[in-house]
Amino acid sequence: MTRTTASGPDAHDLPALAGLLLDRLRSERIRVHAITNSVAQAFTANLLLAAGGIPSLTVAPNEVPFFTQRSDALLVNLGTLDGERREAISLGIAAARDHGKPWVLDPVFVEASPSRLEFARSCLSRAPRILRCNAGEFRALAECDAGPPALQAFARSHGTVIALTGEIDWITDGARIVRIHNGHSLMAHVTAIGCAGTALIAAFSALHDNALEAAAAAVLVTGVAGDIAGADAKGPGSFQPAFLDAVFNLDTASLAAQGRVS
Amino acid sequence: MTRTTASGPDAHDLPALAGLLLDRLRSERIRVHAITNSVAQAFTANLLLAAGGIPSLTVAPNEVPFFTQRSDALLVNLGTLDGERREAISLGIAAARDHGKPWVLDPVFVEASPSRLEFARSCLSRAPRILRCNAGEFRALAECDAGPPALQAFARSHGTVIALTGEIDWITDGARIVRIHNGHSLMAHVTAIGCAGTALIAAFSALHDNALEAAAAAVLVTGVAGDIAGADAKGPGSFQPAFLDAVFNLDTASLAAQGRVS
Amino acid sequence: MTRTTASGPDAHDLPALAGLLLDRLRSERIRVHAITNSVAQAFTANLLLAAGGIPSLTVAPNEVPFFTQRSDALLVNLGTLDGERREAISLGIAAARDHGKPWVLDPVFVEASPSRLEFARSCLSRAPRILRCNAGEFRALAECDAGPPALQAFARSHGTVIALTGEIDWITDGARIVRIHNGHSLMAHVTAIGCAGTALIAAFSALHDNALEAAAAAVLVTGVAGDIAGADAKGPGSFQPAFLDAVFNLDTASLAAQGRVS
Repeated sequence: MTRTTASGPDAHDLPALAGLLLDRLRSERIRVHAITNSVAQAFTANLLLAAGGIPSLTVAPNEVPFFTQRSDALLVNLGTLDGERREAISLGIAAARDHGKPWVLDPVFVEASPSRLEFARSCLSRAPRILRCNAGEFRALAECDAGPPALQAFARSHGTVIALTGEIDWITDGARIVRIHNGHSLMAHVTAIGCAGTALIAAFSALHDNALEAAAAAVLVTGVAGDIAGADAKGPGSFQPAFLDAVFNLDTASLAAQGRVS
Repeated sequence: MTRTTASGPDAHDLPALAGLLLDRLRSERIRVHAITNSVAQAFTANLLLAAGGIPSLTVAPNEVPFFTQRSDALLVNLGTLDGERREAISLGIAAARDHGKPWVLDPVFVEASPSRLEFARSCLSRAPRILRCNAGEFRALAECDAGPPALQAFARSHGTVIALTGEIDWITDGARIVRIHNGHSLMAHVTAIGCAGTALIAAFSALHDNALEAAAAAVLVTGVAGDIAGADAKGPGSFQPAFLDAVFNLDTASLAAQGRVS
Repeated sequence: MTRTTASGPDAHDLPALAGLLLDRLRSERIRVHAITNSVAQAFTANLLLAAGGIPSLTVAPNEVPFFTQRSDALLVNLGTLDGERREAISLGIAAARDHGKPWVLDPVFVEASPSRLEFARSCLSRAPRILRCNAGEFRALAECDAGPPALQAFARSHGTVIALTGEIDWITDGARIVRIHNGHSLMAHVTAIGCAGTALIAAFSALHDNALEAAAAAVLVTGVAGDIAGADAKGPGSFQPAFLDAVFNLDTASLAAQGRVS
C-alpha cells in the first residue's frame, strides 16, 4: 500500500490494499451516509452491511446534515433526482465539506435529463473526492468519448479521481491510470450494482487518503466479488445473494488470487 | 404470430410469439420508463434487466418527459400515489402520447382509496394501450364483477386491452379472449410480482402492435417463469431469485413445453 | 396461551402462542398498513406476505387514512422521515385511534437526528400499543441506558409495551419481562430485518390483545426464523431468501423446538 509507482499501484499491491481496507471497514464499522436513488437504496444498504459498514439513507433535507456529520463519508447519487433529493444533496455536500468528510459523486443517467446534467455540473464544481460513472455518463459530462487521455484531462481539470466502470474499469487521478479487468456479465442484468459499488468507494475513501488507490481498491472488491458470484449463479436472480455473500466472505487471499489489475 | 383466429391466438402460437418477443427485447435492449410505486421499483428494474431490457425509474416531474421520450414504452403504476407521482404520471402520459410510445396502466389498490380511483379513471380516459389489474381493482373501476362479458364490455367501451391476472389470467381486447393457466401460488407471497409483470407487458407492447397478443405473450412469460421458479423454491424467499433466473433463461422451447393457453 | 405467570409467559407457552398467531395471520389474511422508510418497504412487504398477511405501504397523506381504516394494524417507522412521511404518520395514527386499530412505533435512528427525536416523542405521546427499538434508540428516547429497570420504568410511564431487540431481546409491559435468546449474527448484516420484524409485531398485535405476549411472540418468530436461515446461509445475501422461506414454513413444532425464552 505504501509502495506505489508512477504508473499506478503495482498489480500485486492493489489486492493487498483492498483486503486491508476491507478488514478495516469491518473492524471500524465505517459509516456511509448515502443520498441515493430510491431504486438503489436497499441494495446499497445491503452491500455496505455485507462489507461490514453501517449505512444510513435519509434524504430528508433537515436530517441530512446530522447524518452526514456522524458518518465517515457521503455518497451522492443523482438517480431519481426529485426536488427533495436536490436540496438534500446540496446540504449533504456542504456538511461533508464543513466536517472534512470525503464525498463521492455518481451521476446516474446524466445523459438522459438536461436538468440532471446541469445539477451534476454544479456538484462537480464542489470538489467530490471521486467521480464514478460509465461511458455514457462521462460522454455527457465531458462532451467527448471516454479514453485514457480524455479521462486524465477531465480528472486534472476537475481536481478529482475518476472511476469509469465498464467491461474494463479505468481509474485515474489525472496522472496514473489503473485498469481492472474483473467483473461478470450478469452485473449488467442486476439493478443498482454500480450504484452500490460507489457506496463502497465512498467507504474506502474514508479509510485511505490516496483517492486513486481507495477507488481502485473498492472497484477491485466489487469486480472480484462479481466474478465469484457469477461463477455459480444461474442468472441475475441468484447472482444477487451470491454477490453479497462474496463481499461478506472476501479476503486478501481471494483478492490476490483473482484480482486482475494492470 | 401472423396467424390469429377470431377466438384468440392459437395455443401453439402464443408461446412462439412470446419467445420471439423475448428474443427481440434482448437484442434490441428495449427501454421502459417505469413510473411505479416505491415498493416495486427495484424488483421492476430487476425483472426488466433479467428479460434483457433497460429500465429507468425517475418520478421527478421535470425529468419524466425526457426519460419517456427516449424510452420505447411507459409504465404507469398507481401504487404509493403521492403528489409528485400524480404530476409525473400526467406529464409522462402526455410525453408518451406526443411521441407515439405505448403506455400501460396498472391501477394498484385502486379499491382502497377514493382519490386514487378518481385518478385512475382520469388516466383511463387518456387511452392506455393495455390495462393490467386484478379482480378487486377491476371491480372498483368497472363497478361490476370480473367475468368474460364484463371484461369485454369494459375493454370495448374504453378502447383498451385488459389483462386481468389471477389464478387464471384473462386477456381481452373486447372481442377475443385469451386465457393463461400458468403461474404458481408462491407469486401471491412476493411483493411487486404483478407490478413488475406489467412492466414486461409495456416492453412487449413496444415490440408488437397487436396489444392483445403483446399483453398475452408477456403474461405467459411471467406465468411460465413462475411455474419454473415455483417448482424448486422452498418458499417466497427462494422464489424471487429463481423467478428472475427463469425469465433470464426462458426460451421458446420452454414456453412451448410449459405454456398453457386457451 | 391463557396461562401466564406474574413473571412472564411460561417458556413453553410462548412458542405455542406464536404458532397459533402465525396460523391465524395466515388464515385471516391480516392486513397491515406500513408507513415505513423507503429502504425497508419492499422487505417489509415481503416479510408480511411470507407470514401470510397483506401489506399496503402508501405514504401519500390523502390516502393513508383510507388504507389505515381497512387494515387490522398500523406500523409507524420513522426512517427516511421526510415531510410527507411526517404528515402521513400523524394522519395514520389519528385514523388508527379513531377506528380502534393498534399501532406500533419503530423509531429508527432516532439518536441521529434532533428533529426525528422530537417527532418520536410526539408519536410516543399518542399511545402506541408497542414500541420496538434497539439499545441506541432507547438511550436517545429515555436518556438512560437500556436495562430491565429502565425499560420497565419507561414502559410504565408511557403506558406502552417495549420490545428492545439486540443479541438478547427484552420485551416488557412495565411489570413482566420476557427474554428471547434466538436470532443470528447475520441479521445485523441485512437491512430492514428489524423494521420488517416490527411489521410482524403489528400484525400479531391485531390478533392478540395482550400486547406483551403479541410482541414477544412476533419477536420469537423473527428470531427462530433467523436461526433457521442462518444455519444454512453462506452470508447475508443467501440469508435473506432463507429467512423469508423460514417464516413462510414456520410452525408450532419448530418454534417449540428452537425457541429460547426466559
